[in-house]
Amino acid sequence: MTYQTIDVKSHSFSYPIYVGEELLSRRECLIPFITGQQVLIVTQEKIAQHYLSVIKQMLQDYQCAEVILADGEQVKNLHEWQKILEMLMHLGYERSCTVIALGGGVVGDIAGFVAACYQRGVNFIQIPTTLMSQVDSSIGGKTAVNHSHGKNMIGAFYQPRCVIADVAMLKTLSQQELISGFAEVIKYGLIADAHFFIWLEKNFQSVLDRDATALLYVISRSAAIKAEIVSQDEKESSMRSLLNFGHTFGHALEAAYEYQDIRHGEAVALGMAIASQLSVMLGAITSTEFDRMMCLLRACGLLEKREKLPSYSKLMTLMLRDKKVQDGKLNLIVLKKIGQAEKKSDIKPEMIELAINKVLDQLK
Amino acid sequence: MTYQTIDVKSHSFSYPIYVGEELLSRRECLIPFITGQQVLIVTQEKIAQHYLSVIKQMLQDYQCAEVILADGEQVKNLHEWQKILEMLMHLGYERSCTVIALGGGVVGDIAGFVAACYQRGVNFIQIPTTLMSQVDSSIGGKTAVNHSHGKNMIGAFYQPRCVIADVAMLKTLSQQELISGFAEVIKYGLIADAHFFIWLEKNFQSVLDRDATALLYVISRSAAIKAEIVSQDEKESSMRSLLNFGHTFGHALEAAYEYQDIRHGEAVALGMAIASQLSVMLGAITSTEFDRMMCLLRACGLLEKREKLPSYSKLMTLMLRDKKVQDGKLNLIVLKKIGQAEKKSDIKPEMIELAINKVLDQLK
Repeated sequence: MTYQTIDVKSHSFSYPIYVGEELLSRRECLIPFITGQQVLIVTQEKIAQHYLSVIKQMLQDYQCAEVILADGEQVKNLHEWQKILEMLMHLGYERSCTVIALGGGVVGDIAGFVAACYQRGVNFIQIPTTLMSQVDSSIGGKTAVNHSHGKNMIGAFYQPRCVIADVAMLKTLSQQELISGFAEVIKYGLIADAHFFIWLEKNFQSVLDRDATALLYVISRSAAIKAEIVSQDEKESSMRSLLNFGHTFGHALEAAYEYQDIRHGEAVALGMAIASQLSVMLGAITSTEFDRMMCLLRACGLLEKREKLPSYSKLMTLMLRDKKVQDGKLNLIVLKKIGQAEKKSDIKPEMIELAINKVLDQLK
Repeated sequence: MTYQTIDVKSHSFSYPIYVGEELLSRRECLIPFITGQQVLIVTQEKIAQHYLSVIKQMLQDYQCAEVILADGEQVKNLHEWQKILEMLMHLGYERSCTVIALGGGVVGDIAGFVAACYQRGVNFIQIPTTLMSQVDSSIGGKTAVNHSHGKNMIGAFYQPRCVIADVAMLKTLSQQELISGFAEVIKYGLIADAHFFIWLEKNFQSVLDRDATALLYVISRSAAIKAEIVSQDEKESSMRSLLNFGHTFGHALEAAYEYQDIRHGEAVALGMAIASQLSVMLGAITSTEFDRMMCLLRACGLLEKREKLPSYSKLMTLMLRDKKVQDGKLNLIVLKKIGQAEKKSDIKPEMIELAINKVLDQLK
């Protein structure tokens, strides 16, 4: 079985995303990207049980240490970040060393931010183990930790030297996590590729049933779209902001639920529904197109009924704290049509309120 | 009075270093480089007393807050860094905000690392107030904090949008600090410009007497050399490492004195003496050239007698912890001739021991 290579351009170098099955046993995807003799693997408990020994087996020629964080997002904080840095110092790791993130978005974000800051930056490799991290967070160099003031408030843009997306690793993923990641996949169809969206409408069930061919296609197409966008705009000055489709609302929803009772993908799905409702109001897409999108989200289990729903005013307050706010103005991404998005900064609050309420009403 | 502009090329943008007198009153050097409406000035107590009100006066149109750190290097740590980040969050500063470093290397390093990490990077401006920071640390984007395991162990490469080097600010600098910064100036002559070295041999007294014309020349020539080198090699992969001339020994000396009783410039001067002694042994420079350099360092007060001197073995242990160590090998910068340097990784330990002992003997 072969694998696919997608290149991501960064300001000073390009790096490959390898997409395939059973890539963990392929030395050529990992070993050429290791620098120095010292490797630190950062992972989380559940993932470590399944895959840590396989990776360590391949790294027998290196001085290899690991950090196994507790499961969950709560470890993505400055305290754990500092502990990992202190471990590197304690072990006497040199600037030539390599940090490997083995896990989902939480691991990639904190390990990447460690790699970005240890001795002003050391070599970094991403081995994403969730659909969400394989199609989104491992690509493009966003690293960060959370703070009580907000998610990802402290971090850096720091590119990995390679990303290894092994579809076989998704076998151990819970169905809820798979569905959560699928929300980002649908996003790529909506903002960048109408044909892909249509393919997803027809084939979503194969993906959710973890058909390997369907998963491989979904991951490689999503990774290619993300790679193309971040290659054009590494630091989110223009084009890259389109990737935030559904995310300004989504982040506010996550905050409103205090990061409990809602997964990132579920929040993004709701956010995409709100942004698409706005796109209907702006006359950019038809209500039929909106219904198709809602139908797909619902069929995937991304629009479940909810007992408690946040109010518009609560969401608006939270949105104005978002990193994308500039001079107090919300920058929102809406659809121009299915497969194309654009940034708007002049949408009236009343219209936003209406869109939010219309979508939330459907969840009651 | 006009000022000089030196451009530094970074991967994605160029930024100016303005060198001149009374630049703090010139709006055109500062205001065009501010983004957003929110500005945070990071400074230290002594500097704040002299210059904070002048800068704040110029920033009346902005929301402007300040952090005044205690004097000294001990504030350059993760704890203070986190406190500044939390202040930015508490104030609700947006990603479009600007962080200004007003001070010496300590302030530039910690404020730069804050700017590098707040919301994955915000706008950053350097107003260096010491000779050391004007000719060296404010240029090239190295930011960091110290840790008990070593200096600058945690940090980032993060470029400022502009550097304002105002020679008038050096009036309040102590003579010892001026001399310490002068060590880096001599370094530029030794590694990159033989004519500049000869000029320094003839004119060092005017610089130490703070003759404005001499200071302006020294700062602009030094800044131009550093700017040229870092423009060619932003991340210290090759050429930039030449700037470490004297620094591997220097950092070990500072650590041996536990960062007390020796200033950075004094340690670098001693380090340059050792590296030059090695250059004599390697047949690259003559002993007459070595003596000329020692004579200049001594005349500037950079080679004072010392009661306690560290041993070779102590220094070697400390050097092997240096960030520049690769696979356990020391990379040392030596002179090819006066005005040109090169990296060597194969110098025998016995030769290093001899060079260290020869130089330290002269301080007894």
